[in-house]
Parts: sequence; structure tokens; C-alpha cells
Amino acid sequence: MIKVGIAGASGYAGNELVRILMQHPEVEIKKMSAHSSAGKRFDELYENYRDINEMTCGALNMEEMAEECDVVFMALPHGVASKAVTPEILEKTVVIDFGADFRLKNADIYEKWYGVKHEGRNLLDDAVYGLCEVNRDIIKGKRLIANPGCYTTCSILSLRPLVAEGVIDPDTIIVDAKSGVSGAGRGLALANMFDECNESVKAYKIASHRHTPEIEEQLGYAAGRDITISFTPHLIPMNRGILATCYASLVKSLSYNDVRDIYEKHYGKEYFIRLTKEGVFPETRWVKGSNFVDIGFKIDNRTGRIVVVGAIDNLVKGAAGQAVQNMNIVFGFDEKTGLKFPPIFPA
Amino acid sequence: MIKVGIAGASGYAGNELVRILMQHPEVEIKKMSAHSSAGKRFDELYENYRDINEMTCGALNMEEMAEECDVVFMALPHGVASKAVTPEILEKTVVIDFGADFRLKNADIYEKWYGVKHEGRNLLDDAVYGLCEVNRDIIKGKRLIANPGCYTTCSILSLRPLVAEGVIDPDTIIVDAKSGVSGAGRGLALANMFDECNESVKAYKIASHRHTPEIEEQLGYAAGRDITISFTPHLIPMNRGILATCYASLVKSLSYNDVRDIYEKHYGKEYFIRLTKEGVFPETRWVKGSNFVDIGFKIDNRTGRIVVVGAIDNLVKGAAGQAVQNMNIVFGFDEKTGLKFPPIFPA
Amino acid sequence: MIKVGIAGASGYAGNELVRILMQHPEVEIKKMSAHSSAGKRFDELYENYRDINEMTCGALNMEEMAEECDVVFMALPHGVASKAVTPEILEKTVVIDFGADFRLKNADIYEKWYGVKHEGRNLLDDAVYGLCEVNRDIIKGKRLIANPGCYTTCSILSLRPLVAEGVIDPDTIIVDAKSGVSGAGRGLALANMFDECNESVKAYKIASHRHTPEIEEQLGYAAGRDITISFTPHLIPMNRGILATCYASLVKSLSYNDVRDIYEKHYGKEYFIRLTKEGVFPETRWVKGSNFVDIGFKIDNRTGRIVVVGAIDNLVKGAAGQAVQNMNIVFGFDEKTGLKFPPIFPA
Amino acid sequence: MIKVGIAGASGYAGNELVRILMQHPEVEIKKMSAHSSAGKRFDELYENYRDINEMTCGALNMEEMAEECDVVFMALPHGVASKAVTPEILEKTVVIDFGADFRLKNADIYEKWYGVKHEGRNLLDDAVYGLCEVNRDIIKGKRLIANPGCYTTCSILSLRPLVAEGVIDPDTIIVDAKSGVSGAGRGLALANMFDECNESVKAYKIASHRHTPEIEEQLGYAAGRDITISFTPHLIPMNRGILATCYASLVKSLSYNDVRDIYEKHYGKEYFIRLTKEGVFPETRWVKGSNFVDIGFKIDNRTGRIVVVGAIDNLVKGAAGQAVQNMNIVFGFDEKTGLKFPPIFPA
Repeated sequence: MIKVGIAGASGYAGNELVRILMQHPEVEIKKMSAHSSAGKRFDELYENYRDINEMTCGALNMEEMAEECDVVFMALPHGVASKAVTPEILEKTVVIDFGADFRLKNADIYEKWYGVKHEGRNLLDDAVYGLCEVNRDIIKGKRLIANPGCYTTCSILSLRPLVAEGVIDPDTIIVDAKSGVSGAGRGLALANMFDECNESVKAYKIASHRHTPEIEEQLGYAAGRDITISFTPHLIPMNRGILATCYASLVKSLSYNDVRDIYEKHYGKEYFIRLTKEGVFPETRWVKGSNFVDIGFKIDNRTGRIVVVGAIDNLVKGAAGQAVQNMNIVFGFDEKTGLKFPPIFPA
Repeated sequence: MIKVGIAGASGYAGNELVRILMQHPEVEIKKMSAHSSAGKRFDELYENYRDINEMTCGALNMEEMAEECDVVFMALPHGVASKAVTPEILEKTVVIDFGADFRLKNADIYEKWYGVKHEGRNLLDDAVYGLCEVNRDIIKGKRLIANPGCYTTCSILSLRPLVAEGVIDPDTIIVDAKSGVSGAGRGLALANMFDECNESVKAYKIASHRHTPEIEEQLGYAAGRDITISFTPHLIPMNRGILATCYASLVKSLSYNDVRDIYEKHYGKEYFIRLTKEGVFPETRWVKGSNFVDIGFKIDNRTGRIVVVGAIDNLVKGAAGQAVQNMNIVFGFDEKTGLKFPPIFPA
Repeated sequence: MIKVGIAGASGYAGNELVRILMQHPEVEIKKMSAHSSAGKRFDELYENYRDINEMTCGALNMEEMAEECDVVFMALPHGVASKAVTPEILEKTVVIDFGADFRLKNADIYEKWYGVKHEGRNLLDDAVYGLCEVNRDIIKGKRLIANPGCYTTCSILSLRPLVAEGVIDPDTIIVDAKSGVSGAGRGLALANMFDECNESVKAYKIASHRHTPEIEEQLGYAAGRDITISFTPHLIPMNRGILATCYASLVKSLSYNDVRDIYEKHYGKEYFIRLTKEGVFPETRWVKGSNFVDIGFKIDNRTGRIVVVGAIDNLVKGAAGQAVQNMNIVFGFDEKTGLKFPPIFPA
Repeated sequence: MIKVGIAGASGYAGNELVRILMQHPEVEIKKMSAHSSAGKRFDELYENYRDINEMTCGALNMEEMAEECDVVFMALPHGVASKAVTPEILEKTVVIDFGADFRLKNADIYEKWYGVKHEGRNLLDDAVYGLCEVNRDIIKGKRLIANPGCYTTCSILSLRPLVAEGVIDPDTIIVDAKSGVSGAGRGLALANMFDECNESVKAYKIASHRHTPEIEEQLGYAAGRDITISFTPHLIPMNRGILATCYASLVKSLSYNDVRDIYEKHYGKEYFIRLTKEGVFPETRWVKGSNFVDIGFKIDNRTGRIVVVGAIDNLVKGAAGQAVQNMNIVFGFDEKTGLKFPPIFPA
């Protein structure tokens, strides 16, 4: 049993993390913090925990959490972790950060896209990008894990095998992504009120969403060179789920089976990545509530493009589930521990 | 490990049962049947099971299932179980029936409300009404469990303590219930198409829904006499959840704490029944995906009535979850085994 | 052509009022105010008006509006109109108030339920309760119209004929009402965020909602005595619509046709009230976007009760549409002018 | 007043057509047909018309309709109109076809994408593609109007100015479109049941949707050469609305204002096309229930691409509204007659 701290439990990702950890056989939740709700009981913030989690949320105190916990999950906005995490903290505890601070290796790019100064440049080398299926081997033994973003997890995993094998032109990549509203967080905002979201769909932050450089960096590693992509997020009237529809030009003519072989090579042994059958495409309902990534593709001979579709639950594989998967890797548990729950449907 | 058969796996309740059983530590799913989908793989019917449940559904063969399984769940419409279950079947296996055939002790009332002949009158005495929190002691050792209906579970549990303690007039009971669309099943019907349900609410089967006599019978046992209630179901544009708003006249003036004491007396030790705090009322979002029943109430001194609100997930406590709870009781497992998952929110 | 002012155009009811008035052949919108958005263009608040309504919202100035407009709609919270409306204002303009200030004749009851002092007691006698189908004759010629609440319009119209004809016992009336989220207004509130409402249903303000005394007063007039009812509002995950499920005990045995005759007598000539056929019940989808009230009922001989179901669009017949209907009456236009649009489905 | 016939009134587009025509000052609906519902009253199929449209639907009889009506709207699946419409029919009446039969000038391409023989090749030269803003001048005086598809209307109008002015490379065009479920029609299908659509998003008919060649043909006219595009439709859990997110590479560096000028040149005088302000993008909620097309764009200097977003109501501008707009053109009414209703929000 390891002791866990959750900083930022009051957001949707924090709430989901609690749900998963409460069912994890190797974990005890020791401390929870929630900035604006400090002093409140967790089941007052989230009544789903009525009678089953009556812990009180404290104010964020990293030193104390680090002292008492083997691992601290930071489900907080960007800019917090880079200030709060120090080498001293990392000596005492493992940090798995849901924010963006340690995801990009290049702090200048971070500062450009996020518009704030990076306060933790000294730790960037110690951090690892926690995309489990890709970086599993270098995650082991690390103390600072940058848990990937929701859109990025879905987009990178969907496209990476094609980029790595050099069968698509990376400069033609376009990712058109659709997210449920929980991706926007629990903060009050007119745009996220029921009547403003329901019965509507919109694109937002076109060509300017902060997950763009994260996708570019990771796919760039696979390509062996810098790449630039188009990324457009959309808001969909549903609670959970991300669907990424990805377009790219093939550099040569390939059959369905050729491409299938590539995906099998990369993901054939991955429990959490499921390839759909030919002619079947992922839908978010089939992954909801689970840590799965579903991936399917179609080759369009008319245009010479491939269309790859990926689906995840943004709060699980896109946040809390992947964070726990990272924890499992770091602490040497079976990677699937506490994460094997099937998707829930209809839900 | 016990061996389990699922007859009627292709409906939403069957699908939910599979989800729960796959996480149950004491169970192996041995056989599945799906009448109109016999020969199909389960993950073709429900792609949430892609890669994780590739069993093939057979045609219903009760003899074979009974032979090979310790327990058979029948997630089938009314009228099937009363024909398919026989004393010989019950010698070989335990049957937990999701249908209505064995819920009402009086077969004449069954025939009147369901409009079909009851084919299994000889087994009615052997059957037990599987409302776990109420009938736990008489469920133990039974071979034929009538799993309660979704509306009925929520309505009976909400009102029973008040009826049992004689503090409300049973003849004044009105239950106004609201259900998500999954309660209507997966069969094709214009009324359940997306555009016909979405952005609308309706009452249906007013004063004629078949769950009415079930509620009346069970509350009648608590009252010690026959009672007649008004029951109105409504369809709500959401996937899951039932909310029952129950009205009744108090027979004497009672304070909040008086009534609270009654609920605590009946349910204080029940894991799956959660009482909301004063001034807080159940909402279906807080129980979604779980086996919990949330109950809250308000005393209205102006009218002399009490309003009790109950909330469940219709597919869990209202169907598959309670069925597993019944299985746990029958087989002597801890009643909560495989059912302790927290509600999932937002979902 | 009459000149119209809209005070409080930034709420959902105000927005709907603009939509209706823009299609009204006898009306010119002259001025709009929006307290917290003063100085903003209306199409910035509501982009549905892009290119078609570029008026700028001012701060509320009743004197100026009264001076320039033949009628002022006040789509503002309770407590505003009773301060802002004076005899001098009413000499210059007609006021149609969406708030509650002039709905209840008894200011003491107002103060008890609303928890604020009533600042306009002197005008209560001049005000008329603008439930058009009931008060049409006394609305004509009035200068101050209290536009009824959304729940109340639906509840009163559903039950009034039965109360007026003395066929139900008023003391047994229970109204279980369901509303779309737009009824909660456009103000920021966690409870009305998409992920908090979607996929859930809840009761709220049980036995304490402010529309209760309004229903009681109006039905009391029909009954010829004071009455007390139970009223429970619920929030439904949809944008628009109210469904009121009303229960009452019949004082004598009546057939469907007996009751039908009563409704025909009261509403047979009403364009905006539509009676459903026997066995058919109102659903909010069939009135969405329109000024119609659909009413259906079922006699339950088992319990001696009648269940009446009413459905309206809360923003049209429950707010802006009825306000325009009142304006039509006051100014001598055909009552249906600008309001004959059919419901929009699916929407 | 002209006399109108509606063939195929029972679908969602037919229902919407009735709604619009009932408010059109120059029109009388003379006949309605509904194949599988012949003999039923229209208000039984669509209860929104309770008391306001009690016409009975007949079986389809084109000769009779043509005889009695000045214009016949055919809201029927592809393959019907090319058989039912003949030169003799067109001598008697104007036909506005919602199906695809006369949209593509090249019947071979039609047969390839639709997989059926084209039975009306002789009429192709007489037909005009009824995209009003583009073909207004050649629609006048025509007797056979091919009403454009929903996805195509949105996609073509969004991209056409850029193609016509030669500022994008047509071979790089990718249209990622999102549609509400009403686009799938009212026919029974498991995939369109509430619980199967709600809380999910999916791509479908990737690189194979039949609207693809329609977009290609029309944009090809603007380009002056054949072009090939990628088109991916998605299903969104909402009733109405289409959002088309369109990507293309710019052939030269252009500023926002450069591109704005192009759109103003093409659409500056169009009532039904609304350009969003810089930094603002269309959302389907702002056009719902109206005949508007909202268009916005973003230039992405990093990738050299432009992203254009278009939004329509699929049942109005994408079907019934545009059909009425075509009728207005053909019969010499003001093009906006009966179509000036503002979008309805929230709805």
C-alpha cells in the first residue's frame, strides 16, 4: 500500500482520480487539497462520495503532502506545479502533474503558448512525458511525471505509428478534435452553462490551442525532426469523451493491411489501445469511463490521404486514468492495476 | 469462483450485468445467450467490450445453462421466465429473473396487469422478491429470485420505513417517477429515437404502469394491509437514472428528526442506502453507475404532507447491480462484493 | 405601430421577447436596457441576432423608456418593478412585468415568500394578473400587467376548470412540475453548468418554491376559497419546456367525457390551449417554440384521482409569448397577432 | 397565393417545410403525401400541429399533385424524383426536389456514388442546382430545382469565395463536418436511438459520404477545374445544426482583411449569409431555427492554412428553408419572404 496525496481534488479530473484510486488495491488516499474549497468535506463538493469519502480538503501544502505521501497527484492549472515542485519535494515524493508545466522540453515554447514565465526550468531535465505506451521504459524510476493533456494523448497515440514509420507527410497533419464539456473544467463560465452548450457545437481556439505544441513535440520525436500541425478543438454537448479525427497525406500507396500491420507492430501488445476492425470507427461511447484508446483508420485513395480516428475518455485516459497508469509504472505495479474496468454503456 | 450464465445479454440490463460481473472477483461468466443476436459475438453488440469480452452469444437453452452454471441471470421480458424455469432447472441452478413473472405473489393480479397467462404458478411459492435490504434473510437459500423492477426498487425503498412505522396514510401515496431512456430498453421504437426524446419530457402509462401493483404489494406487506397508490412514470432526456418523488399525508405532526430517526432505524446500517442531509435532496447524477439508493425528504407543514425523494441508477440498483447483490446473498459472499464502485461523475 | 421598450433584455426571457417582437407586425422595438451589460450591443450578448438586431442596450431608465415607449416590458427579477414603477410611469406607458411583484394581491404573502419588503403596495389594485385566457376581460384597459410565472401558467391552466367546476377536492392538489434549465436564467451558477445538469434530474425548493402562493391564489379564486397545494419543481436536462403533472381527488365519479366537457366548456374556443385526445398526453417537444398550452388528463378509478398533464414552452407561454399576448389584449390587436408560429420540432 | 404540394411530408425535412410554409404569406398548402403514413392525419405524425394542421396525408400521386399545385416539394430519398418527375409533370408544376437525383450534372458520378441507375438523365439539362446565393440568376424561370444537401450547402458556401478567387489550393481542401441527429432522418435505426447517440460523437462514412461529389462539382465550377476533397461527417448528440470546419492551404500570404474583403465581395449583400467578426466563430446555436449561414475564418500563419467554419440549421438552410428560398426566386417573391424569422435561442 502506498500513500497518495491529491492536490486540486475539486476539479473534474481530481474527482475522477479519487474514483479510480478508491478502487485501486495498492493505494490509500492520505491527503486531499482543494484551493478554493479548503476546509470543506469532499462529499460536499461531490455528492457522489456521500458516505464513502468524507475526507476534508485542506489548502495546498506541498511540503506536508510530500512528507506524508509516496506520490502526489497535482490536478491543478498550468503554472502551479513549476512553482510548487522543487528538488526537495522530489526527494520526498513522486509528483504526477496534470498541468502543462513539465510537458514541453523547451521552456521558451511553453512561455510563448502559455503566456507566463516558466518557473521550473531547472527541473525540466528530470521530468518525463508520461505517455505510458510510448515512454513506459523511461518513466520507470522517474520522480516527476508530466501527465499528458487529453487532446494530446488522443492525437499523438492516433498518429504516432504512421509518423514513426514515415508513411505520412508530417507537414500535412490536421487534427480536428471534439471534446465533451468536462474538458473545460468546473470553473464558472457562461460558455459552459447548460443552455449555452446544449444543442450546439463550436470550434474554439482555432490554430491557437495550447495542446498544439505538445502534439508537435511528441510527433516530432517520432519523425526525427520538427513538425508543424493544424489542430482545432471543438466543444460537443456531452459530458465526457474526446474524438480526434486526424488527416494526413500518405507518402506512398498503402493498403489497409499495410497500415494495419504498422498499428499492430506498435500497439499489438498494448492492453489499453484497441484497434477497431476494418470499416469500424471509434465512438466515444465505447470508451466512456475506461482507460482505453480506440483507434481506427480509413485510406482514401481518391485524395491520397489517410483518416485516423481516435477516441478516449478525456477524464480517464486523458487525465486521471493515465496518471494512475503512470503511478503503476513508477511504483512497479502491474500497469493495469486498478484500471481494468470496462467502459460503461449507455452512460 | 462460481459459474454464471446470462440469458438475454443483448439488452441494456444484460450489458450492464456483464460489466459488473467482469469485475466481480468470485465469478466466471460461462455462457451468454441473446435471442435475436444468437451467433454474434458480444463485442459486436456492444463495442465497449472490444478486445475484453469476445464471447459468442448463443440461443437461449435453459437446460444447458442450468447444467453448466451455478446461477443463471435472466434479463428477459416478462412471460419468458415463467415458461422456461421449472423445478428441474432450479435443482441444477439458481435463477435470478429480471422479469416480472415471479415478483407478484398473486398470479391473478399479474395476469390482469400484464395481460398474459401466468405459466409458472407452481413456482410462485418458491420464489422470493429480491429487494435485498428488505428481504435479505429470506433470500438466503432460495433458488428462484425475482429481481425487482427499477421504478419499484426506488419507490419502495423510499417509502417503506414510513409505511412500516405507520406515520403516513398509505392511501394518500403518490409516486411521480422520472426515468432515463435506457429504462425503455434497446428495442427499436420511434418514441425512443434521439430526436424524439431529446429536449422533451413526458408522462406515460399514467395510472396503468405495470410497476404499480409491485409497489402496492410490497408496501402492503409493510402496512399490514392492501393499499392502492398513484404511480406516474416520466421519460427524461438522459441515459440513466430514476428519480422518484413521493408524496403522502402524515398521520400526525412529525419533525425532521422524528422522520430521520425512522429512516436511520431502517437503513442506518445499509451500505447501499444513503440518506441525504437535511435540506439536501437526491439527484440522479450522484448515484450514476453505482448500486446506491439516495433518499431525502421534506416535511411540508402547510399541507401536512411529506415529500420523499429517492434516486437510483436504473441499470444498477434498478437491475444488474441488485441482481448481483442477490447473487452475493444467495452464495454467501459479502453482499457488497463487486459492487463497491463509487458513482461516476460527470457521466 | 406601437413603440416598445424592453427592460432586462439580457436574460433568456428578454432574448425570447425580442425574437417574438421582431416578427410582430404592429411593433417597433425602441429601447432596450440590460443592467450588467449596459453599453453592449444586443448581438454581442446574443449572437443569434448577428446582423439583424444591432441595437445597443442602455442602463435602465424607466422615465426615459416610459416617455418614449407605448409599452415597457420589464424582464427583471422580483423586487425591481415594485420600486421602478410609479403612477407617473403608468400615466405615460403600459408596463408588463415579468417579475412577481404585482402577481400576488396580498403583499404580506409576497413578503413572506420572497423575503423582501414590497415597495409598491399602492399599485397593487391597479395591477392585473395577466393570465390571458382567464383574465382577458379585465386585462383590457389596464396599464400594469403582472405577467404570470412559467410554472404557474402551466399549473393554473391545467387545473382551473376542475377547480372552478368543483369536481376535485382542492386540498388534495399536488403539482409535480418539470422544467428545462432556461427556467433558471442566464446567471452564472455551478448548479446550471452543463456537466452538473446534463444526465441528471433533481427536485429543488420542495414545498418552498415561490410560485406556490401564486398558484394557490389563482386557483383559490376559481374555488371561491383559500386553498393550499403541494408544489415540487424539478430540473430536467433540456433547454426549454415545462411539464406539470397534477394530481387531485375527484369529489364524485366522472367519466372521461364528463371531464372532457368541462375542459371544452372552459377552453373550447381558446386558440392557445390545445386538449390532447383521450389516451394521448402532452409532451414538451410538441409545444417548443410556441405559445401553446397542451393539456391532457387521465381518470384513475382505482384511486379516485385525476391526473392532469400540462405542457408549455417556459420562455414563450411561460414568459415572453404570454407577455406579447397581454400586449395584444391591452392595445386591442387580435390576441394571436405575432404569436401564431407553430411549435418547432425536432428542436 | 400559390398552391403547394408536399410529397414526403412525414420526414423531418417535410415537417420543417410545413412549419415554414404555414407562416408564408403567399402560400397555401394544398396537398401532402406520406408514403408509409398515407391516410393518417398530419397532426398524428407530428403532434406539434395539433389543432393547427389537420390535413390528411395521401399516397404519392405526382400527376394529381402537379395538376392541383403550382409547386411540388419532394422531400423524398434519392431515386424517387428521377422516376416520378417527367417533362409532362414539369409542364404542369414546378418541382423542388430535396433528393440528390438532379444535383449532379454527371449521371455517371451519381450512379457511382449512389449505387443506383439514374432514371431521369433526360431532365438533367433542365434542372438547376438550387444553391440560392450562387445560382439565383439561373434559378429564375426554371421548373426543376435540385435543392442542395445539408452538408453541401454549408461546405460550399463556406469555401466558395476562396476557391473562386484562387487564394487556396483546392487539392488541399478538407471538410470536417458535424451534424445533429435529425440529419439522419426519422427512420428507425438502432444507431439513432437516444441511448446510442446521446453522450457520444462519431465519424461515419469516412471518405465515402455521398455529399462529397456534390461539393466537388460545385467548388469545381468555382475553381474552373475538377477538384477532389476530403469530407468527413460526424454525428453530434443534438437535434439540429451543422458545423463545417474547413481546411485549405493558402497559395499566398494573406491578411485577415484580405480574406475578409473576399467574403464581403461575394456575400456582403446576402441577407442569409452572416460573417462573424474577427476572432469570433460560428456556433450552431446561433443559427438554429433560421435560414442563416454563419461563416468565420482564421488564418494560421504557422501552417500556411486557412480554417473556415460555417454553421447552418440542417433542416432550414440545409433543407426546407432553402427550398422555400428557391420557391421565392422561381415565383418572383422577395427572396426572404416567409424566411426572416430570427434564430431561436436557447433551443
